[in-house]
Amino acid sequence: MSGSTDATDADDAGVVYLVGSGPGDPDLLTVKARRLLEDADVVLHDKLPGPEILGLIPEAKREDVGKRAGGDRTSQEYTNDRLVELAREGKIVVRLKGGDPFVFGRGGEEAEHLAAHDVTFEVVPGVTSAVAGPAVAGIPVTHRDHASSVTFVTGHEDPTKEESAVDWHALAATGGTLVVLMGVGKLPEYTAELRAAGMAADTPVALVERATWPDQRVATGTLADIVEVRDREDISPPAITVVGDVAATRETLAAFMRNGVDGEGGAE
Amino acid sequence: MSGSTDATDADDAGVVYLVGSGPGDPDLLTVKARRLLEDADVVLHDKLPGPEILGLIPEAKREDVGKRAGGDRTSQEYTNDRLVELAREGKIVVRLKGGDPFVFGRGGEEAEHLAAHDVTFEVVPGVTSAVAGPAVAGIPVTHRDHASSVTFVTGHEDPTKEESAVDWHALAATGGTLVVLMGVGKLPEYTAELRAAGMAADTPVALVERATWPDQRVATGTLADIVEVRDREDISPPAITVVGDVAATRETLAAFMRNGVDGEGGAE
Repeated sequence: MSGSTDATDADDAGVVYLVGSGPGDPDLLTVKARRLLEDADVVLHDKLPGPEILGLIPEAKREDVGKRAGGDRTSQEYTNDRLVELAREGKIVVRLKGGDPFVFGRGGEEAEHLAAHDVTFEVVPGVTSAVAGPAVAGIPVTHRDHASSVTFVTGHEDPTKEESAVDWHALAATGGTLVVLMGVGKLPEYTAELRAAGMAADTPVALVERATWPDQRVATGTLADIVEVRDREDISPPAITVVGDVAATRETLAAFMRNGVDGEGGAE
Repeated sequence: MSGSTDATDADDAGVVYLVGSGPGDPDLLTVKARRLLEDADVVLHDKLPGPEILGLIPEAKREDVGKRAGGDRTSQEYTNDRLVELAREGKIVVRLKGGDPFVFGRGGEEAEHLAAHDVTFEVVPGVTSAVAGPAVAGIPVTHRDHASSVTFVTGHEDPTKEESAVDWHALAATGGTLVVLMGVGKLPEYTAELRAAGMAADTPVALVERATWPDQRVATGTLADIVEVRDREDISPPAITVVGDVAATRETLAAFMRNGVDGEGGAE
């Protein structure tokens, strides 16, 4: 266990907060995230926090660091450098990430860049869409009777990688729930992989589009027909895919839920 | 997609909110959870939300449904029935769960029980300790260079199951980060299983005890020596185990973090 004091943590130095916004409903911001959006000098964000949360931030504080000309790598390097620059100006900087900053958010890379440049930072965890997306659709990602584990994976692989780092056969063998983030586009590829790995064709699958946003939609099917369902319902990113027996729980729960799923009663 | 209206959702009927408390820091409650603790007529809880959050709830509203004489099964049945009873009295009921209600919280079973008894409910996702515990210790559970997936599993298996439902060999084969909740006691068993499955002896492992609580502690080691570290540092439940290359990220990040890890500066 380390215990050094940090010379960069002086009163006149800036600080970067790597903040999770949750899935998109402003009510699912943490108390701390909500306060930091007020207190920040500047908020760096992309589109993932969603329109309702971005709408809470005064225009003058907002810096959009989402997709730019030149591709993702350029964008990430720009963001990294901008965070350091603003902190050195003494600013209170919020780097707002959709969901949780450390779940497929490149928050780890940003934290490493800050540490490498002697910038003090704090991580403010958020409600991850990987759990909340299924939940508001009536799907518990773990269940004593159906799933002893849950795995999060991204369907949107790093394009610079030569081969997929995701071993779908190993994931199928866990027997637990699989949650695929950013997995609408590659749905045909990985559902085929999972079937080839021995998962039953009738394994329940759910797609949750824009979870907790005002226009949230849910579509359900099986490993065998979910691609057809996606196309018929025109499910588009951002969306979460849930594969496993727990996805069928929605059939029992949705009618009694006040989570605003498919217009079933307003929650508030 | 279903779209029925729900006759139980009348103005005079009660409602149950299955609410995640987050890992324990009251600042990591969601805005909605914080408000519901004010608005609720009664809050059913156990010890897992931690002392700071439980201290926010007026004594008169609190009902402790934690471990009772007769064991877990009795307790869960009592809780299920009590939720229905209170809702039928017209109460606004909060069922407060540590972390997220649908990540190893039996929230799924409680939701099914409510649906089976025609009780309207709402799920309020929380910040899961499985992500936030590692995060505040300087460990991103996913990382573009180190981990393309993360799996949550419980080290505290259902005692009524005849054999373990967790396939540690399959989990080791995923190549991703493993986060074991409630896994202090069984640490010797599953670290041995993971090594037998071919995971390297020098795979980094971190233990995060009482993550985000005022007395949070972190201990680190490898698959080979973490049991020894646990015993030497006297790491006790509740704690989270992180297995995988990401656990080593802490060495780089901790000195620059203001998350109150091991006394490294106060966050607020």
